[in-house]
Amino acid sequence: MDPLRIGIAGLGTVAQGLLEILHANSSEITRRAGRSLSVVRVASRSPKPSVDLGTADFSTDLSTLHDADIDVVVELIGGEDTALQLVRDAMAHKQSVVTANKAIIARHGNELVADAGREGVMLGFEAAVAGGVPIVNALTRGMVGNRVQWIAGIINGTSNYILTAMADHGSTFAAALQEAQGLGYAEADPAFDVEGVDAAHKLTILAALAFDTDFRFDAVYTEGITHITTEDIEYARELGYAIKHLGIARSSQDGIEARVHPCLIPRNCMLANVDDVMNAVLVHADAAGPTLYYGAGAGARPTASAVIADLVAMARGDAVDFKVGGADHGALNMEQVETAYYLRVPSLDEPGVFARVATILSEHAISIEGAIQRERAVHVDTSASWVPIIILTHRVREHVMTSALKAVQALPEIVGEIMRIRVEQLD
Amino acid sequence: MDPLRIGIAGLGTVAQGLLEILHANSSEITRRAGRSLSVVRVASRSPKPSVDLGTADFSTDLSTLHDADIDVVVELIGGEDTALQLVRDAMAHKQSVVTANKAIIARHGNELVADAGREGVMLGFEAAVAGGVPIVNALTRGMVGNRVQWIAGIINGTSNYILTAMADHGSTFAAALQEAQGLGYAEADPAFDVEGVDAAHKLTILAALAFDTDFRFDAVYTEGITHITTEDIEYARELGYAIKHLGIARSSQDGIEARVHPCLIPRNCMLANVDDVMNAVLVHADAAGPTLYYGAGAGARPTASAVIADLVAMARGDAVDFKVGGADHGALNMEQVETAYYLRVPSLDEPGVFARVATILSEHAISIEGAIQRERAVHVDTSASWVPIIILTHRVREHVMTSALKAVQALPEIVGEIMRIRVEQLD
Repeated sequence: MDPLRIGIAGLGTVAQGLLEILHANSSEITRRAGRSLSVVRVASRSPKPSVDLGTADFSTDLSTLHDADIDVVVELIGGEDTALQLVRDAMAHKQSVVTANKAIIARHGNELVADAGREGVMLGFEAAVAGGVPIVNALTRGMVGNRVQWIAGIINGTSNYILTAMADHGSTFAAALQEAQGLGYAEADPAFDVEGVDAAHKLTILAALAFDTDFRFDAVYTEGITHITTEDIEYARELGYAIKHLGIARSSQDGIEARVHPCLIPRNCMLANVDDVMNAVLVHADAAGPTLYYGAGAGARPTASAVIADLVAMARGDAVDFKVGGADHGALNMEQVETAYYLRVPSLDEPGVFARVATILSEHAISIEGAIQRERAVHVDTSASWVPIIILTHRVREHVMTSALKAVQALPEIVGEIMRIRVEQLD
Repeated sequence: MDPLRIGIAGLGTVAQGLLEILHANSSEITRRAGRSLSVVRVASRSPKPSVDLGTADFSTDLSTLHDADIDVVVELIGGEDTALQLVRDAMAHKQSVVTANKAIIARHGNELVADAGREGVMLGFEAAVAGGVPIVNALTRGMVGNRVQWIAGIINGTSNYILTAMADHGSTFAAALQEAQGLGYAEADPAFDVEGVDAAHKLTILAALAFDTDFRFDAVYTEGITHITTEDIEYARELGYAIKHLGIARSSQDGIEARVHPCLIPRNCMLANVDDVMNAVLVHADAAGPTLYYGAGAGARPTASAVIADLVAMARGDAVDFKVGGADHGALNMEQVETAYYLRVPSLDEPGVFARVATILSEHAISIEGAIQRERAVHVDTSASWVPIIILTHRVREHVMTSALKAVQALPEIVGEIMRIRVEQLD
């Protein structure tokens, strides 16, 4: 059978990893695909670094990737505008596309999936979510007989590294971020990771695949980890929880909820043990029950592994024809989402404060599941005469909690901003 | 497109779960498969229980499944001889086959894969390993660009349940087994599970897929968990380890090693946190690095989920054409396998015993990584004047350890049988 002829856009670390692995494992890949995967051309707007391209041409003109001798364009240039145009152009030229670009799939996935269908080409984006973890494959093939009820994932390695360092070494957020930057895990501008935007892109993709819905990046509630303190991590631990930055999507009668935020989860659950830069996605489905997929969420070689999975599926002619948008589900506003809460309420060290807080919660029909109130505060500035009241609540809708906390915050005994972190049992 | 016409052999709990889910999720499955999955006939040698078969016929004659109106036979009768004959007959009738039967794939997989290729039909056995965990899919598609270096899995839920109960509640093996039997997790004759045969079947399949080799059930070293004591679990915990029953397969220059046995693994690794009846497989591959797949290893609905994944792949015409046997790897004898060891040496409570044991290990070039020696024994019969010496060694070949332990066992101060459990760092 003729080789699958590949053009690669970009020649950064992922592209170099891809070339390396396609070369190193070529006999295995050819045998499994039933034909060889041949890189015909690499195009990058920057001058070619000293990288061995084997028999491939090099061009600084991306448009040469649309020549008729290329079947599949692999988009690894990143960014948004140029990458999107390249993908559109490829499909217009009847070329299939593999991309690791979560932003363009999350923001333009509906259009691109429709384009692929119309042009009769294949679109693969296994590499766009959780790096080397074959989660797109798991959702679209492994779970194909299931209705997925919810998914919860640690899908940003940088944030997970920072939270792990804070939990394991008591580092502050700032120190842990600096450490991550020193190790190359975080960009100089880390906002994209620590504010949750990157995770929201990935959650958009996971939710679309899990629930056969449109890609709805605009509907994802997004909250980062910059406000998490070591104090909260310590209290959470005392209560039997770890704090992780999760992407959660759930399908219910009310609609689809999709949210990225820090979250207390039981310390003995699998996700709580996913540390450092590792990623994992827990999928709760009606037939299979809970399944979890864990691995490296980034890096040149894991990403290349995912790209090759898509390329081999295309070589075999059996890439999944995504069924996103097949079902009509509304997006659920965050105000309507129901979760449990961890609250840290900085209050004057006076009798009766806890009772007043509890009364307000009770008036809003919010039940308290547990609390920590110290005789003497351990984690606070010792010169102050205030203590944190720590409360775990039962599940309640977000807008109810917001109203209740507004009332609590207005109490004269409350001396600082209340911290709230959502809690999920993941069962 | 015409429906995929399915015949089901067997009407036990898995078959009933399959019928239930095919019915409940039929609109999703049809949309994703691009055609409907229609159960034409159910055949079971036992009389039909009161189960709703929808539009399907029922027959007590298994041979009616080979009629021309059936495209795929789903083998869910279990056992070996009749099931194997049914699968052979189906393929001879140009029918594709889906089976949850690990024994026939492990023992006859080479023949059956070859038959499928010759007859031009598809063979699916996702359900044969780790129930609802789509591990066959992950290995044959997700990891298709990788060379897998090794895999390690908790692939028998009964054994894992027993070891979890022993670790969490201090139950003895016998009590934990009884508990598992009471909950329906273990058969009246539990040997198949607790002696490791079931895990060896699954490991045979995983190894064949991971390394593109033949199914070599005969080459799997198999050791159960019946000799594990709570004492060993306690010592392991003290050393920072959990004891799990693992299936491990590794590819090296020396050949393929495949072994099922209890194993100390670091308590903070993902596999150590896989508890109760859950299964998980850790795959270490050259491009993706470590990935892990976790979920329910048994049960009607998870197994049905896996069966449907195969059926949908067949409906789409893209079931994987297994490449097992593609590479020529020798099987490595257990004597040549290298692992670290935990040793519990019951010895007289006299000075110098530890030194004598250490000297013998040293003479065999076995390095000690750690040890526990108590002033006063905690876990032993208090009327005895002996103590256990606990030793962790560095990696050494099995036959070297066997020789060394023979010499240690012959020391006059050693008053009971030495316990050895292999140790893996899984990194």
